[in-house]
Amino acid sequence: MSYKQILYNTTPAPAIDPSLSGKGTFRVNTVPRPSNVPADKLLVRVHYLSLDPAMRQWLTAKRSYIAPVELGAVMRGQSIAQVVAVGSDLGSKFKTGDWVVAYSGWQEYAVLGAKEVEKVAIPAGGRPTDAMSVLGVTGLTAYFGMTEVGQLRPGDTVVVSGAAGATGMVAGQIAKIKGAKRVVGLAGSPDKCEFLVKELGFDAAINYKDPNWRKQLKEATPEYIDVFFDNTGGEILDACLARAARDARFAICGAISQYNSAKPQGPTNFMNVISHRITMKGFIVFDFAKKYPAALQELASWLSQGKLKRKEHIVPGGLEGAPKALVDLYAGVNTGKMMVEVAPISEAVGAKAKL
Amino acid sequence: MSYKQILYNTTPAPAIDPSLSGKGTFRVNTVPRPSNVPADKLLVRVHYLSLDPAMRQWLTAKRSYIAPVELGAVMRGQSIAQVVAVGSDLGSKFKTGDWVVAYSGWQEYAVLGAKEVEKVAIPAGGRPTDAMSVLGVTGLTAYFGMTEVGQLRPGDTVVVSGAAGATGMVAGQIAKIKGAKRVVGLAGSPDKCEFLVKELGFDAAINYKDPNWRKQLKEATPEYIDVFFDNTGGEILDACLARAARDARFAICGAISQYNSAKPQGPTNFMNVISHRITMKGFIVFDFAKKYPAALQELASWLSQGKLKRKEHIVPGGLEGAPKALVDLYAGVNTGKMMVEVAPISEAVGAKAKL
Repeated sequence: MSYKQILYNTTPAPAIDPSLSGKGTFRVNTVPRPSNVPADKLLVRVHYLSLDPAMRQWLTAKRSYIAPVELGAVMRGQSIAQVVAVGSDLGSKFKTGDWVVAYSGWQEYAVLGAKEVEKVAIPAGGRPTDAMSVLGVTGLTAYFGMTEVGQLRPGDTVVVSGAAGATGMVAGQIAKIKGAKRVVGLAGSPDKCEFLVKELGFDAAINYKDPNWRKQLKEATPEYIDVFFDNTGGEILDACLARAARDARFAICGAISQYNSAKPQGPTNFMNVISHRITMKGFIVFDFAKKYPAALQELASWLSQGKLKRKEHIVPGGLEGAPKALVDLYAGVNTGKMMVEVAPISEAVGAKAKL
Repeated sequence: MSYKQILYNTTPAPAIDPSLSGKGTFRVNTVPRPSNVPADKLLVRVHYLSLDPAMRQWLTAKRSYIAPVELGAVMRGQSIAQVVAVGSDLGSKFKTGDWVVAYSGWQEYAVLGAKEVEKVAIPAGGRPTDAMSVLGVTGLTAYFGMTEVGQLRPGDTVVVSGAAGATGMVAGQIAKIKGAKRVVGLAGSPDKCEFLVKELGFDAAINYKDPNWRKQLKEATPEYIDVFFDNTGGEILDACLARAARDARFAICGAISQYNSAKPQGPTNFMNVISHRITMKGFIVFDFAKKYPAALQELASWLSQGKLKRKEHIVPGGLEGAPKALVDLYAGVNTGKMMVEVAPISEAVGAKAKL
């Protein structure tokens, strides 16, 4: 028995080449599936891979918050996986059929230590993939970015870029739940904008591909911007600097517009930082790890009460679709959390959880 | 009797034209000197004008922390002035010969209300011009920028740009006094760098006009940068973003390299804000007004103990030298606080203070 992995093959220059033909950014590798699991390990089967904007940065050999993926290694990534075999030392903690969030990387199976997985506790009304999305790193990023970094206060005007993306849509909803006066989303299509306003309750949404988007942003923020939750950087960040209220907080979560750029664009309205006393703060969700439990409890309660809505964009077709899906993520094809279905839920062991 | 004023004449496009011939940014105006001072006013004679990097921004009609100067109005500015006549209602508060920090603008005399002046209390070893420099807005900007905005902690590595300028040189000295492990200044000539290290006790100083300055900055910050006090923006800000330590604080005080630019340059290394969790915070010293008294006391005590050194760059020749001096300020001609001598101290009323 064997299984497939996707390895990091060549450095993007700077765009990711999703071709698996040999010269692309990634290549496929096939390895034997172990028949015996070591005593201190688990064998998990990957069902859903998480695709995240940060991935492009992991392919860059630059001083950063995490070491880059090495050429020839399995591509790094989180997944929702199911335990299919348990090493003899771990029998008290895990059993076959358990769902876990796994630091598996891009492969169909993985042999992992107990610290490389987190058991998924599925709350009422929840599903395993939530643990990678609204009740996982994505939701936590939105939560801490809006509360701790953005220092959201009731009555604030909030703008979220990449608002139809996995993190942005949660960030905007949290702002509403926590008392923002006005939440405005920026997204890349009329459909996404409609979704934000009609389904998620944003006060306004602006399609940044519309030639008049700057004017619309101005009209949508009559009292300027108190909190900007930025996932995109580039021109949108610049436009929000121009609309910043005094003492505005800019939570810098991502810069998806710049990741694939050979020459990143700095915010030319940077001097507004001084005149409007703006605080721009970058963050990485891991820094808030000690506060995860309380945040997850709050997120889960909003989810079960229907105050917080989730949305997934699942790419079918198996592991080999991951490179193309990653390129699509940067192109903004998704609304909501982008995942690749490596193995459908119907193939899961038992019927422990419904997706 | 009459006196001269300098009025804002034409909008810079974008560079300031110091010519007073008619088409320049400023023009001279002559007005009669009042023989009777209104009951609620003072007549002051201006001795020293303060020249400040922020002035260029005051000539730009853009939403900012302060309204722009209107065309045809006296150019805005602080000065050290002496009271030469006191209105009848103000006799209990002021007397002829008092030294004041005056919001006089660029003119030889000014008729001002009591709220437009602050009496100078000259501490032991002090001189009136200190109230506009190390014991005035300049020193306070350095103080709050380093402590409240930069959140300096003992053991930090600190970098200051525009370090030989009025604010920068105080900021760097405060960092040393407050326990920084290492203070590195960036300045625009070998002489300035020598001054910073030999006279002010900076650990290192780098001439940013040297082709190898980036390499020197790297070598001077082996443990990266915890606090960056930025007066310049542009390429220096970018280089410091590349050298930021995790959780670095960037106190954004000014952007003198960008003020006269038609197309400001944004920091292209902006994405480091995320990976290194940098906080960039712009500030205006007036926001800390409630804390001025305690800060001034601390600054004055350091000054009298010789821990804090001052340096002035006084441009002689009278009021009409102010426009050219302002251009020189942006060219970095000065080491220390740039002032224009409108009237020498020898012409002061009485002999109350020595300069």
